[in-house]
Amino acid sequence: TRELDLAVIAGDGIGPEVVAEGLKVLDAVLAGSDVTVRTTPYELGARRWHETGETLTDADLEAIGQHEAILLGAIGDPGVPSGVLERGLLLKLRFAFDHYVNLRPSKLYPGVPTPLGNPGEIDFVVVREGTEGPYVGNGGAIRVGTPAEVANEVSVNTAYGVERVVRDAFARAQARPRKHLTLVHKHNVLVHAGHLWRRTVEAVAQEFPEVEVAYAHVDAATIYLVNDPARFDVIVTDNLFGDILTDLAAAVTGGIGLAASGNINPTGAYPSMFEPVHGSAPDIAGQQKADPTATVLSVALMLHHLGLDAEATRIEDAVAADIAERAGSSAPRTTSQVGDALAARVAR
Amino acid sequence: TRELDLAVIAGDGIGPEVVAEGLKVLDAVLAGSDVTVRTTPYELGARRWHETGETLTDADLEAIGQHEAILLGAIGDPGVPSGVLERGLLLKLRFAFDHYVNLRPSKLYPGVPTPLGNPGEIDFVVVREGTEGPYVGNGGAIRVGTPAEVANEVSVNTAYGVERVVRDAFARAQARPRKHLTLVHKHNVLVHAGHLWRRTVEAVAQEFPEVEVAYAHVDAATIYLVNDPARFDVIVTDNLFGDILTDLAAAVTGGIGLAASGNINPTGAYPSMFEPVHGSAPDIAGQQKADPTATVLSVALMLHHLGLDAEATRIEDAVAADIAERAGSSAPRTTSQVGDALAARVAR
Ligand SMILES: CC(C)[C@H](C(=O)O)[C@@H](O)C(=O)O
Ligand SMILES: CC(C)[C@H](C(=O)O)[C@@H](O)C(=O)O
Repeated sequence: TRELDLAVIAGDGIGPEVVAEGLKVLDAVLAGSDVTVRTTPYELGARRWHETGETLTDADLEAIGQHEAILLGAIGDPGVPSGVLERGLLLKLRFAFDHYVNLRPSKLYPGVPTPLGNPGEIDFVVVREGTEGPYVGNGGAIRVGTPAEVANEVSVNTAYGVERVVRDAFARAQARPRKHLTLVHKHNVLVHAGHLWRRTVEAVAQEFPEVEVAYAHVDAATIYLVNDPARFDVIVTDNLFGDILTDLAAAVTGGIGLAASGNINPTGAYPSMFEPVHGSAPDIAGQQKADPTATVLSVALMLHHLGLDAEATRIEDAVAADIAERAGSSAPRTTSQVGDALAARVAR
Repeated sequence: TRELDLAVIAGDGIGPEVVAEGLKVLDAVLAGSDVTVRTTPYELGARRWHETGETLTDADLEAIGQHEAILLGAIGDPGVPSGVLERGLLLKLRFAFDHYVNLRPSKLYPGVPTPLGNPGEIDFVVVREGTEGPYVGNGGAIRVGTPAEVANEVSVNTAYGVERVVRDAFARAQARPRKHLTLVHKHNVLVHAGHLWRRTVEAVAQEFPEVEVAYAHVDAATIYLVNDPARFDVIVTDNLFGDILTDLAAAVTGGIGLAASGNINPTGAYPSMFEPVHGSAPDIAGQQKADPTATVLSVALMLHHLGLDAEATRIEDAVAADIAERAGSSAPRTTSQVGDALAARVAR
C-alpha cells in the first residue's frame, strides 16, 4: 500500500468549496485500491493575512515542502491590497519550490459550449515557464506618487532557466502523437530575451529530431487561438505570455471552470503544486456556484505526476462523460452536486 | 484650398500594394473638394537595408519629420534578422516622433465573418501607450550563447508617460456615447508598473466624473474579448499588452485585414503615423491578394486626426457598405479591386 501525503491549501473565495470536491473525487477514485491519501490543511490566504499579517512564513514553506504534492484552491481577496497574496503567497510557492514547468492543458471536450463558432478539435498543452520572466519581482519604483515617478519591471531570462523548460516541453511534444511544438515569444521587439528563447529552442530541437518546431509572436498566437486553435500541440512560452495565452485558451475551450494546471518541479526536489487556473471569484464564494471541474482535473494532473496514470485517466474520462451527458442542459448544479456526480463516475 | 503634405512609407511585402489603394481612396474622397494631397515616398525597409545597411538615418527622420502626417504600409522581411527593421525602423519612428497614443479601434461591421459564435455588438477602441513599457529597448544580455547567459528586458513606465496617455484615453471615453474606460494591466504581479497605472487612472478619473472606470487583468481581458467583447468601450493599456490585445481584437472583429491604427502625437510636435495593424505578409506579397481595407481605414483615422471628419466618415461608411454588400459572397477580389470599389463609393 502507498500513502499519498498531500498539503492542501484551500485558500480564498471559492477555493475551499472546489478543493472539497477535488478531494472527494480523489478519495472516490482511490477507494478500494491500495493507495490511500493523507491530507494536511494549511491555513493560508486572506484570513491568515488579516489576522497575523503573514502570507507564507519560512516555517510554512518548510512544512509544506515535506509533502509529496500540494493541492491549491485559489488565492486572492478584494480586502487585501493587490499583489500581497499573489506575490507573497502564490508566486512565492511557485518560486520557492522551483516550479519551472507550469503545465496547462487545453482540450475542448465534446458537448462543451465554446465562444467560437467553428472551433475544430482543440487539444494542446501550454508549457509555461514558472520561475523567470517578468514574474521574478525584480522591478522597482522611484519617486512614487510624484510626477517624476519611474516604475520599472525587469524580465529576467537565463539560459539555465529557459533550457530546462524548453527541454521539458520537447519531451512532452515527443510523447504526443502529433509531436509538434510552437515557441511563442516576441523576439522582434524583446530581442534579448526573445533571441535567447529562440536559440535555445533551435539547440534543443537537435536532440528531438522527430519534433516539428514552429514559432509565433505572442500577438499572432492570440489570433491563432481563436481562428485556428487546432494548429497547436505543445506551446512553450515565458511566464507572462503563458499567463495570458492560457486564460484565452481556457476561454475558447469552454471557460475557466474547466482549466487545470500543474506547477511542476520535474526533478522531484520539491513538491509540485496543482491548482485550477481560475481565481478566487469572491463574488460567488460560499454560494456553491463554482464549478469544481477545474480542480478535479488538476487532481488528475497530480495523479499523472505521481505515476497513477490509470486513476488520472479515470477522472478525465469521468469529466468527459459528465460533460457529454449534460451537453445542452442548462439546469445549474451546485458545486458539490458536480463533485458527487464525478465521484460516482470514478468509483469502481 | 488646403494641401495635405504626407510622407509615404510603403515598406515591405504587401506594404506597397495596400498603400497604393489607401492613396487611391484618399484621392477619391478629396476629389472635387478644396483639399489636395502631396505625397513624398520614402524608400525604407528591407530593400534599403540590404542595399545600404541603413534602417532609418537621422536625415530620414529629419525629412519625414517635416510632413504633416505619415502613411505606412508594413515593415518586416524574412531575409532581415528579427528585430532589425522592427526596432530600427518601425519602433524608431514611433519613439522618435513621440507617438504616445497608439490608437486602435475595433468594430465588428455587419456582415463580417467572425470566429465568435455569438459576438454581440463590438465597438471599442484601444488606446495603447506607444513610447514606454517593455518596448523601450532597455534590455540587455550577458554571456550570450553560453550556459550562463542572462537576458533581461526592462519595462520602463513613468508618471509623465502614463498620465498623458491615460488623459488622452479619458478624453476619448468622455467623447463617446457610453463614456466607459477599462484599464488593462497586471497589477497583481507587475506591482510597480501596475500600481503606477492604477493610481494614475484613479487620479485622472477625478477630472472626468462622467466616465465610468473598470479594471481587468490582461489575462482576464483576453477572456472578455472572446466571451463578452461588448463590455468594452475604451481600453487603455501599456505598449505590450496593447500589442497583444489589439491583435486578438482584430481577430474577433473579422481579422487583421480590417484593423487600422494611428500612432498619434496629440501635441502636434511631430507628424502622426497611420498604418494597418497587419504585418508585411511576405508569403502573399506582390500577388494582389492582400486586403487593403485596413490601410483604407487607417487613411480615415488620418483624416479624423487632420480634422477632416466628414471625409473620414465617408470612407468608413464606404467600407461598411462594401462589407455589407459582399456579406456571404466568397468570390475573392484583388487588392486593387477592393481599392477601386471603395474609391468609387467615396467619390462624390
Ligand atoms: C493570480 C496570478 C498571480 C496568477 C498568475 O498570474 O500566474 C494567475 O493569473 C494564474 O494564471 O495562475
Ligand atoms: C511589428 C511589431 C514591432 C509591431 C508591434 O509589436 O508593435 C506590430 O506587432 C504592431 O502591433 O504594430
